[in-house]
Amino acid sequence: MTTTPDKVTAAVMIIGDEILSGRTQDTNLNHIAKYLGAHGVDLAEARVVPDVTEEIVTALNALRAKYDYVLTTGGIGPTHDDITADCVAEAFGVKLYEHPEILAMMSARWGGELTPARRRMARVPEGGELVKNPVAGPPGFMIGNVFVMAGVPQIMRGMLEDVGWRLKGGAVVLSRNVRVDGSGEGVIAEPLERVARAHPDMSLGSYPFFGPEGYGSNLVLRGRDAGELAATVDELVAALAAAGIGTITVDVPAEA
Amino acid sequence: MTTTPDKVTAAVMIIGDEILSGRTQDTNLNHIAKYLGAHGVDLAEARVVPDVTEEIVTALNALRAKYDYVLTTGGIGPTHDDITADCVAEAFGVKLYEHPEILAMMSARWGGELTPARRRMARVPEGGELVKNPVAGPPGFMIGNVFVMAGVPQIMRGMLEDVGWRLKGGAVVLSRNVRVDGSGEGVIAEPLERVARAHPDMSLGSYPFFGPEGYGSNLVLRGRDAGELAATVDELVAALAAAGIGTITVDVPAEA
Repeated sequence: MTTTPDKVTAAVMIIGDEILSGRTQDTNLNHIAKYLGAHGVDLAEARVVPDVTEEIVTALNALRAKYDYVLTTGGIGPTHDDITADCVAEAFGVKLYEHPEILAMMSARWGGELTPARRRMARVPEGGELVKNPVAGPPGFMIGNVFVMAGVPQIMRGMLEDVGWRLKGGAVVLSRNVRVDGSGEGVIAEPLERVARAHPDMSLGSYPFFGPEGYGSNLVLRGRDAGELAATVDELVAALAAAGIGTITVDVPAEA
Repeated sequence: MTTTPDKVTAAVMIIGDEILSGRTQDTNLNHIAKYLGAHGVDLAEARVVPDVTEEIVTALNALRAKYDYVLTTGGIGPTHDDITADCVAEAFGVKLYEHPEILAMMSARWGGELTPARRRMARVPEGGELVKNPVAGPPGFMIGNVFVMAGVPQIMRGMLEDVGWRLKGGAVVLSRNVRVDGSGEGVIAEPLERVARAHPDMSLGSYPFFGPEGYGSNLVLRGRDAGELAATVDELVAALAAAGIGTITVDVPAEA
C-alpha cells in the first residue's frame, strides 16, 4: 500500500457509535469507494471508530501518515457527541476558529438564532478550507490531506462532489468481469491462480454466488493497462474452458 | 475502550478487496454489531483491509492485543486471493495443518475430487478450534481470541451462531429511543448535552433525519443499568419539553 507515482491511495474513517452499535447500516464507504475508483484513487483501508477523542485522533494520525488522502464521515453536527472537528484540530496540532463564511451563511438562514450548538458547526481548524455542502446545513472542510464530511448519506454525497477536483488522480483502474455458472471455486481456483501469477500487475478476485437460480462465481479482473487487461481476460477464459468449465460469460453486470 | 470487568470489547476485521473497490456493499459488520450487542459485547472498532498479507497481519495483531475478541470475515475460500488462514497463522506465529475433520467432511462430499484448491480450505492454524458452518462448505475456526469466518453473508451468519456461546458476555446494553419531530439538532443540542453530562455512564447520541414527511432527530440512549436508563429518559423528555420542543415520542421504532 505504499505510494508509487501512478498509484494514489486513500483511507476512509467512519466516525460514529451508531455504526458500531449496529443501529445504522453504513452505506458511505461503498459510495466513497466507487467515487474514488472513478477518480483513479485506490481505497486502501477503512476504519470505523467510536465517538471517543483518543480513538479518533490516533486513527486519523495513523491513516494520514500512511495514505495520500483520508476521507472522514460523521460527527460534524451540533450535538455534544459531534467531536470530529475538535479531534482533527488536535491531530494536526492547531486551533479551531469560527469561520466567517459559515457564520454569515448561518446568520442568513437562522437570523438571530445562532445558538452555541449551531456555532459549533462553524468551527474549522486553522489552515482548513471549506468543502461545499450543496444539500443542507453547514459545509465540511479539508486540512492537509484530510477531508471531513457529514455522516448523513445524502449530505455526504453532496460534499463528495467538492472533493474529487482536489484529488491528484492516479490512472483510473479498469475492471472486467468473467462470470462462471455451474462451477464452484474448487474447480475455478487452479486456472484462476495460474493466470493471476502470469499477470502480477493485474488484480484477480473470485466472488462466489449461490441462490435459488444456481451457483457459480464472478471473477473480477482489475488493472490500469487496458491492453494487458484484455489479454488477461482472454487467457482466463481460455484457461477456464480448457479446465472443462461450461458456462462462461464475459462482462455481464455482476450480481450479489 | 479499555476493558473493565463488566465491559467486554470486540473488533471486526473485514478482509477483502471487493469491499474497498466498492464492488460489494458490506452487510456483515452491521449483522455482527447487532449480534455482539445482544450478547453484551461492545463492538469498539472495525477495519476493512485489502487482500495483502502484511496489512492483514499487522491489523490483526493490533486488534487482538487491544480488544477481548476479534471477528474476521472473508478470505477463507479456495482461491489464491484467500489468504486469511495463512495470515492468522503468521500473526500467531504458528503453522497451518490440514484438519482431519475437515478433510473427512470434504471427502464425504466430493469423494476423490480433493483438488489442491479445496485442500486449502482444510487448513487451520495449530491450536485452532473449528467454528461450525451450518450453511455450505467447510467450517471457520477460532484461535486465541480470534474468530475467522467466511465473507459470504449467508455463510457468515450461520458461522456466527457457533461463536456466541464462546463469548464471555458483559452485561447486555439496553437501549431506549426518544424521537423528536419538527425540531432540528440546533435546538436539541443544549438540553441533550445537559442530560448527557449528568449521566456519564449513559451513552446519548443524536441521529437526525429529514425527508418528504418532515425532519427531526432520534435520540438514542444506551446503558447497562435499567434504572438509570429509565431515569435518564425521563430527564431528557422533561428537558426537551422545558426547551419548548413540541413533538416528543418515546420508544417508537427508529427509522432511517
